[in-house]
Amino acid sequence: MTIATDAQEMVARWQSANVLAADCPSRQVLQHLTSRWGALVMIVLATGQHRFSELRRQVQGISERMLAQTLQDLEADGFVLRVAHPVVPPHVDYSLTTLGEEAAAHVMGLARFVESALPRVKIGAKDPAGTEAA
Amino acid sequence: MTIATDAQEMVARWQSANVLAADCPSRQVLQHLTSRWGALVMIVLATGQHRFSELRRQVQGISERMLAQTLQDLEADGFVLRVAHPVVPPHVDYSLTTLGEEAAAHVMGLARFVESALPRVKIGAKDPAGTEAA
Repeated sequence: MTIATDAQEMVARWQSANVLAADCPSRQVLQHLTSRWGALVMIVLATGQHRFSELRRQVQGISERMLAQTLQDLEADGFVLRVAHPVVPPHVDYSLTTLGEEAAAHVMGLARFVESALPRVKIGAKDPAGTEAA
Repeated sequence: MTIATDAQEMVARWQSANVLAADCPSRQVLQHLTSRWGALVMIVLATGQHRFSELRRQVQGISERMLAQTLQDLEADGFVLRVAHPVVPPHVDYSLTTLGEEAAAHVMGLARFVESALPRVKIGAKDPAGTEAA
């Protein structure tokens, strides 16, 4: 089974590199990309440059505070570029860096899987014993 | 730019399908796979069947309560199969369903990207202005 071999190799490397460990920085980065809001913000930014208010409109339900925190984390990781234009009223643009575009492609791969799997996920939820495993 | 077209198509579909909306079930599922612990548990389970205590040892820092909640969510989605053997003392095995293996492959793709990007991420963190975007 190829995924098991693949995952075994990954977990072994992580254990040696301490990545499954609580204090490895990669955990933080993975969490920023996959947090409650991080994934959605990354995907909206992958469509192109946005202002703060546009992002807030697109990602329904996100608070101003959470959007600011999410953007700040992603910016600190080097995924998001923040450009403040010196005009009145203030005008701030957010976009993905090159690294951010690479990250977004992976986040989108996962999100696309979830979309496509949703009908089967619902079946799974109705039958937690897991007929999917058959 | 192919990722922008790809993301635009995705966001447009989401808006029509209401997936960027706060109450879409796909958000919950995405969150289970990418939660603080969900991604790590999925990857450890992708190496093969594990008992609860083995999982807890592998994913350092997870509490008993959080591991139980994470497994319960992933089981309800149909990603994880829980088998309780009728023996004394109790013996419960966790493994991935077929759907779970597919999901794990995508989670691993993202995790592998984060691993490989970590050196560049650190550069990003030191220079939030985003020289990566050049």
